[in-house]
Amino acid sequence: MRWMPPLSIETFASAVDHTLLDVTAPAARVDLLCDEAEHFGFASVCLYPRWVSRAYRRVSDRVAVCTVASFPHGLDSTAAKVESARRSLADGATEIDVVMAWQVMREGDRAAATSDVEAVVTAVHQERDDARVKVIVESSQLSREQLVMACGVVADAGADFAKTSTGFVGEGATPGVVATMRSVLPRSVRIKASGGIRSANQAVAMLNAGADRLGTSSAVAIMRELSVDAVA
Amino acid sequence: MRWMPPLSIETFASAVDHTLLDVTAPAARVDLLCDEAEHFGFASVCLYPRWVSRAYRRVSDRVAVCTVASFPHGLDSTAAKVESARRSLADGATEIDVVMAWQVMREGDRAAATSDVEAVVTAVHQERDDARVKVIVESSQLSREQLVMACGVVADAGADFAKTSTGFVGEGATPGVVATMRSVLPRSVRIKASGGIRSANQAVAMLNAGADRLGTSSAVAIMRELSVDAVA
Repeated sequence: MRWMPPLSIETFASAVDHTLLDVTAPAARVDLLCDEAEHFGFASVCLYPRWVSRAYRRVSDRVAVCTVASFPHGLDSTAAKVESARRSLADGATEIDVVMAWQVMREGDRAAATSDVEAVVTAVHQERDDARVKVIVESSQLSREQLVMACGVVADAGADFAKTSTGFVGEGATPGVVATMRSVLPRSVRIKASGGIRSANQAVAMLNAGADRLGTSSAVAIMRELSVDAVA
Repeated sequence: MRWMPPLSIETFASAVDHTLLDVTAPAARVDLLCDEAEHFGFASVCLYPRWVSRAYRRVSDRVAVCTVASFPHGLDSTAAKVESARRSLADGATEIDVVMAWQVMREGDRAAATSDVEAVVTAVHQERDDARVKVIVESSQLSREQLVMACGVVADAGADFAKTSTGFVGEGATPGVVATMRSVLPRSVRIKASGGIRSANQAVAMLNAGADRLGTSSAVAIMRELSVDAVA
């Protein structure tokens, strides 16, 4: 698939969460991530909570600081998830990507999975009304029916985004998964596709399927790919 | 290597943290883990925070409930680590295996890495003086010099155990790593070897190298192996 108008490179960049969740990455790579996000106009930098303060000091208001909570397994207590989100907001993050307890939901306890997410959403929105919560459902671990249920949990909890994957457990996003999520989520809930997005083709396919935001560690490479296409 | 006296099977069992950190495991496996720990006399069951309450209700006082914090990456904020540990104690855990910010220490900020661990240790010991903190140093990601530094961090922070590995990042424990840790840690700090321990030979090698506790998902298989040896 080729890069298609009317999606400009700038529009594309503004959909990207520029992501560094390599657990071994040194602080210098955090700084580089921030500088790249400024340069290309990415929506945010997405990194571990420990790096939020550092990133917040480095980027301008134009780039949001996004971080994760209960990542990548989602099996922390609700209290720990809430405290993680609160602390990250205090450190300068405005986007919290929290992993839902999909294991709990998968076993039928939808109520517990919902109240877990809801506690984080409520805490974040109370703290800052411009802050956003993205709920990672780990789509590769869910049947189609469970994926639909997870979208229900995300919507019921009042979250801002449903997000496909951590990138650490099973496969990442697929256009099919994104399309399914788009077909069942209310319009008010946006979609972030993530996990394994390494090429412009994949990125465009996710957007075409209904993704509003893309989480990728390959954003700079994809921008280069797109620029070449645009010139050719 | 064969099973050697005077280490009895019972002594061996009492050194085992019977571990279930498979992120996809259903609740039924948590229950089984608890029942096996009771049956074999393992020191503890070690599982995700979300399962602590369930495990605590199922096991007798003879088996401790052990859980993880900031697992497996260690890059949560200190506040989130502390809250996670506190909540797990409230849910019935008495052993907290927390991942230190080894990435931060590795870059030379030993003070930040120490205060991070110290906050967790202080909170846990204040809450329950019989509770124990094990600090995971992720030995495979450290040079020998950094491993020695990490042991210094663990000791300075007043932790009860230094633990080799999460099992999720790089290699797990080796007898060489355990021996190095033993040679530099004060006697008051015990050692938990973990990550990749799947056979009786490996387990015995870790104990011989100086480990006081073993974290393994293969404890039942190892017990069977040892029983056969004992009978033979």
